[in-house]
Amino acid sequence: MTSAERLARVALSRLTEPGDPRFTKLVAELGGASLHGMLLRQEDSHGMLTDVAARLGSTDPERELDRADRLGIRFVIPSDPEWPSQLGDLMNAPELHQRGGPPIGLWVKGPWRLDQLGASVAVVGSRSSTTYGDQVSSEMGAVLVRHGAPVISGAAFGIDQAAHRGAIAMEGPTVAVLACGADRAYPAAHQSLIDHIAQHGAVVSEAPPGCAPTRIRFLARNRLIAALSRGTVVVEAAQRSGALNTASWAERLNRQVLAVPGPVTSAQSQGAHDLVRRGVATLVTNAHEVLEMVGGVGEHLLESPQEPLTVRDRLTLRHRQVLDAVPVAAGVGTDSVARTAGLGIVEVRSALVHLEKTGLVEQDGVGWRLGVLGRA
Amino acid sequence: MTSAERLARVALSRLTEPGDPRFTKLVAELGGASLHGMLLRQEDSHGMLTDVAARLGSTDPERELDRADRLGIRFVIPSDPEWPSQLGDLMNAPELHQRGGPPIGLWVKGPWRLDQLGASVAVVGSRSSTTYGDQVSSEMGAVLVRHGAPVISGAAFGIDQAAHRGAIAMEGPTVAVLACGADRAYPAAHQSLIDHIAQHGAVVSEAPPGCAPTRIRFLARNRLIAALSRGTVVVEAAQRSGALNTASWAERLNRQVLAVPGPVTSAQSQGAHDLVRRGVATLVTNAHEVLEMVGGVGEHLLESPQEPLTVRDRLTLRHRQVLDAVPVAAGVGTDSVARTAGLGIVEVRSALVHLEKTGLVEQDGVGWRLGVLGRA
Repeated sequence: MTSAERLARVALSRLTEPGDPRFTKLVAELGGASLHGMLLRQEDSHGMLTDVAARLGSTDPERELDRADRLGIRFVIPSDPEWPSQLGDLMNAPELHQRGGPPIGLWVKGPWRLDQLGASVAVVGSRSSTTYGDQVSSEMGAVLVRHGAPVISGAAFGIDQAAHRGAIAMEGPTVAVLACGADRAYPAAHQSLIDHIAQHGAVVSEAPPGCAPTRIRFLARNRLIAALSRGTVVVEAAQRSGALNTASWAERLNRQVLAVPGPVTSAQSQGAHDLVRRGVATLVTNAHEVLEMVGGVGEHLLESPQEPLTVRDRLTLRHRQVLDAVPVAAGVGTDSVARTAGLGIVEVRSALVHLEKTGLVEQDGVGWRLGVLGRA
Repeated sequence: MTSAERLARVALSRLTEPGDPRFTKLVAELGGASLHGMLLRQEDSHGMLTDVAARLGSTDPERELDRADRLGIRFVIPSDPEWPSQLGDLMNAPELHQRGGPPIGLWVKGPWRLDQLGASVAVVGSRSSTTYGDQVSSEMGAVLVRHGAPVISGAAFGIDQAAHRGAIAMEGPTVAVLACGADRAYPAAHQSLIDHIAQHGAVVSEAPPGCAPTRIRFLARNRLIAALSRGTVVVEAAQRSGALNTASWAERLNRQVLAVPGPVTSAQSQGAHDLVRRGVATLVTNAHEVLEMVGGVGEHLLESPQEPLTVRDRLTLRHRQVLDAVPVAAGVGTDSVARTAGLGIVEVRSALVHLEKTGLVEQDGVGWRLGVLGRA
């Protein structure tokens, strides 16, 4: 039998807008059944919620759940084992664009359980991305899932879809959070992408099945993308963009905010550069740097890139001292090298002969100068 | 008559290597004439400087100055009005690669006076730069001089030459600091560039005329580029490069260290990204951001880019509320929009009619959805 709490939350999910803090926070505090009862008894002393109270009779939560079930969609609420507990952080995060609070429930389609998100990473960005951005995003998605980090995004054009596709190419878990119902595809061109995610990962929405995407719902959706993940990577973002809205949410939620740089001549990278300049985001250049930031302590410690030893590194200190005194262009005599190096002429001559064999120095008509290898 | 101090410094400049801290710091403390006298009297109790003392007789400072003068080169020392006082910061900066201390003197060719550097900026980077890097560097050079900031660089291939050329295109002051004598051109392919700088700006070297470029002298040269300027901009730099050496000097000297990002797929931008990630450099995307960092207080305060108002920004709050409740894709009826917006149906209908006139919403067969402008 379906609990009263679940039914109440279904009704409230249908009657309120995603992320409306008047409801989300009350429900999180009092519970859905309790608020539902208050509304039925018209105990809303402030009259703030009368519009919802008036429409309570118009919903049939049992039938909503049946219909969702037939669409392969489940309704996940906080008392379910699958509930992603990190959404609790939304309770205390400051509101943004009049959205806030934990969702009343999540409509979910797909085999991936939301309590298995672990060190998941949101990869978001511009819908009108560049080839460069798409390439970085899909590479990011692929390497993240290969290291066990589910990739969360919004299934939009551009950066979002590239991140999902990168994850899918590695057969790794990816989660699409939509502004419309989990039964719908927006944008319509991504119908097959979203279907694929629903079959192998999870499609998530705060809005009940059938709902259309609206600006309010996009803003509410962005907060979920940020809240579900340990960190948000902005790959490309114009100065005003949904990706920056998601980044703001990540910041409010004390999640990692990460940004990928690009050419300064590209308008699409302006938003990302701006985040780094404002100190909001950490610059990242690849998935390993992202994992280092979002991973548990010690899980993904980056080895600082070990540069290959050069021929010069393998020289003795003395030989290196001599090498450093050899001119780059026109040659000079052994005595001149010895003077510059501050070493004896016999020692310097023997060093130069050795260096000549390794290709580090060579002789022109006049004397010693750096060889091809020495100039590298 | 040439002062004893100047002659002593000429001799020491000829007999020691640029940036050798055994000499530079002693000369800065005691003065050139005093150290010269000590060496003549062999008062070097530690025997550290015997190699130089032994060669004191081999130089003829008067003739050195004459010869330099015929080459159009002057020798600038701290007692000269032209001495760039910012070099004093080298006295206390920690050494790097066994180089350090203020130069004993500077050999200068060209009309630009070194005490007029003001808020000068060093623009440095990879010799094997990309087209992107060259473009950013020359644009940077041009805009910096247009705003009165002389551009300092090393006349090398790639980023350096692009920065000089950008400044030259604006007929602005640019200074080349060389590792070889100020009478020579290294690289030889930049002979005409260096000649041009010597005619309109200044070519500077710590090494006396005739000296060949060596690794030691490049390292010493990099410290001068950093010390002469208020900030160093790294445009492109591979992981091991002279530009990073210059950036390290700028950091040690408490100068601004700035780095221009690029595609993460470009090896040439790795060094710059690394500087930002390590917190050494501030990310900059254009010359105005550089000027903001190096300028005097309030001189170059950036106006935060004022974004143009969108059609949406100009709506009344009520109209915006209605707009936010209109779906993006398939249309819905007026009653549905009213419910989502939480407003009365009469008011919503009138708002929708207004929004339709502005192109923000439109009607499909079923009802209202966002218009082209509304989706932008």
